[in-house]
Amino acid sequence: MTPFSFTLEARSGGARLGRIDTARGAIRTPAFMPVGTAATVKAMLPESVAATGADILLGNTYHLMLRPTAERIDRLGGLHRFMNWSKPILTDSGGFQVMSLAGLRKLTEKGVTFKSHIDGSKHELTPERSMEIQRLLGSDIVMAFDECPALPASRDRIAESMQLSMRWAARSRDAFGDRPGHALFGIMQGGLEKDLREESARALTEIGFEGYAIGGLAVGEGQEAMFDCLDYAPGFLPEDRPRYLMGVGKPDDIVGAVKRGVDMMDCVLPSRSGRTGQAWTRRGQVNIKNARHMDDSRPLDEACSCPACRHYSRAYLHHVYRAGEMISGMLLTWHNLHYYQELMQAMRDAIAADAFDAFESAFHAQRAEGDIPPL
Amino acid sequence: MTPFSFTLEARSGGARLGRIDTARGAIRTPAFMPVGTAATVKAMLPESVAATGADILLGNTYHLMLRPTAERIDRLGGLHRFMNWSKPILTDSGGFQVMSLAGLRKLTEKGVTFKSHIDGSKHELTPERSMEIQRLLGSDIVMAFDECPALPASRDRIAESMQLSMRWAARSRDAFGDRPGHALFGIMQGGLEKDLREESARALTEIGFEGYAIGGLAVGEGQEAMFDCLDYAPGFLPEDRPRYLMGVGKPDDIVGAVKRGVDMMDCVLPSRSGRTGQAWTRRGQVNIKNARHMDDSRPLDEACSCPACRHYSRAYLHHVYRAGEMISGMLLTWHNLHYYQELMQAMRDAIAADAFDAFESAFHAQRAEGDIPPL
Ligand SMILES: [Zn+2]
Ligand SMILES: [Zn+2]
Repeated sequence: MTPFSFTLEARSGGARLGRIDTARGAIRTPAFMPVGTAATVKAMLPESVAATGADILLGNTYHLMLRPTAERIDRLGGLHRFMNWSKPILTDSGGFQVMSLAGLRKLTEKGVTFKSHIDGSKHELTPERSMEIQRLLGSDIVMAFDECPALPASRDRIAESMQLSMRWAARSRDAFGDRPGHALFGIMQGGLEKDLREESARALTEIGFEGYAIGGLAVGEGQEAMFDCLDYAPGFLPEDRPRYLMGVGKPDDIVGAVKRGVDMMDCVLPSRSGRTGQAWTRRGQVNIKNARHMDDSRPLDEACSCPACRHYSRAYLHHVYRAGEMISGMLLTWHNLHYYQELMQAMRDAIAADAFDAFESAFHAQRAEGDIPPL
Repeated sequence: MTPFSFTLEARSGGARLGRIDTARGAIRTPAFMPVGTAATVKAMLPESVAATGADILLGNTYHLMLRPTAERIDRLGGLHRFMNWSKPILTDSGGFQVMSLAGLRKLTEKGVTFKSHIDGSKHELTPERSMEIQRLLGSDIVMAFDECPALPASRDRIAESMQLSMRWAARSRDAFGDRPGHALFGIMQGGLEKDLREESARALTEIGFEGYAIGGLAVGEGQEAMFDCLDYAPGFLPEDRPRYLMGVGKPDDIVGAVKRGVDMMDCVLPSRSGRTGQAWTRRGQVNIKNARHMDDSRPLDEACSCPACRHYSRAYLHHVYRAGEMISGMLLTWHNLHYYQELMQAMRDAIAADAFDAFESAFHAQRAEGDIPPL
């Protein structure tokens, strides 16, 4: 079995080009991970997700533990087989989603008890249970169980929460055990407080993880505050391990994060947007619902090689959205995921050529032009 | 351009094997036509529909004339290009769907005025307008504009309605004009009255069409009554033209219709069932919602080569249905359309081998066994 490893191949400014090797194949970094919440990337077949260029998917512990349950997925041969995805899978710890069940959950040193949003049934998540669930799912990259306060929060609350997360990180490490070929990532917390981020990074590094996530961002603080934090936070983490920014983001968030040394990201945005008539292109955002597209025989993006752009007009995409047809979400999600992967490939190429700055300028210049003018 | 033609290649009892040639490719008969109501076969990409083995799709004049409109589709290059389907398309005349807008429509000798179910706007359909719309759509097989009374109806009402449809058939023929490579089909009416069916067939044959449909069945009369009618109705039609039974049906309806000399059929059933957790297999119907599938690692049908059966367990199909995921409708629709096309191929093979009776016995025997027992 290929052991889990990370190879840093090139840099361009702060941006890093690398490769993560896993037992289930390589992940080219910087990498964008589509989200497969309930064992499916919504509106896509997994072979289509792979065709966009995705090397790895994200699965959600919270959703899968409730339905169909981790034990059932284990009996059925694990999450990869269950959802027909043979490449690597990263699973979150369930922590973030449980914390957002305000009013339905109770937090103690031991962990969190909460009620299912599906049927109200009671459940518990602890570092130990989260490790067990992610093992049952067969996850290749397991996330430590952590806590993250809703912002705004006082510095004291952020510090307490971070320190609890660090104790849970140590318990996650112990509970994870010895699992060759699989990786456990620790999650840095500390909000927008630089010294707390540093303290968190030191605590995690002492425990030792195969990779490190930057948690607690992209929770409403805005891009400027996020980039401010990313100006220093990645630097607190070991150079020789992958860095994962959780829940990010829009294309310009992603470019800014890569510029600042982030190697991995995930976000529901491209798939969620695809189901609400929103497309992301090199020229920015296109709202296919808009009447300007009704008679437009041109593709969404003439330079895009996805099926939506190769075979259909904006007029068609507009029509099927308005008619409420499933193919609308299917085609726009495919386009959005394809665009995101093309963006990652363009960044990897730019880093390899040590030309990230030029890439970034061209990226912003093209977006500033905006969408093609109406016919 | 290949002229429209029908070649009768073999018979087995009453069942007919044939080939329809069109400018857009051949249609192997007996043929099942998936329904692409609003310029999409719901939950499917057109290349996936083609992969199931479908040679031809059906499009709906009523839906398309209202949204995005026939004129718009024409400006955009026609329905084939609009929906990315290069093989033949048959369009209905709009008559059937307008007639079912009880209370919203008004019928005269000239045609029907009605209000859109989408926005309440007023529209008119006449034989002439239906021909124009179907020409704008670029339909390969155009259906004459007809009327069909809701059953039960008196014999007088059925006779009057049939005679109106015959006058409209003549007007449709005139309005269709000379369109090489395209075909116009007349529609036989007459309810369950044998003499009216014969009178209708005679009227149509005198006008002369490239093919003939059997209308006014599969409207709630039940399989036995439908088969009784099909025991004589196809025999009133010319031997050397394709016969199309509209809106049929379940797999056993289809087998019984082919046995009685029907060459073409369409139905929303396989795609609609796929979106409500219903699968059709060689062993009958499977309700994937049922809890018995929750832990079942077996495929829906181990002998089926569709993506749903090759790559997923019943447990997965159950899970994604329960979770309300789009992939549920995508996979089950694909399976159902695949099964329907396999059924058609099996019948074509059986007719070629003059073994339709043996096929029919095996078909019913396997269904009588029912679904595989629970694990
Ligand atoms: Zn595209
Ligand atoms: Zn199948």
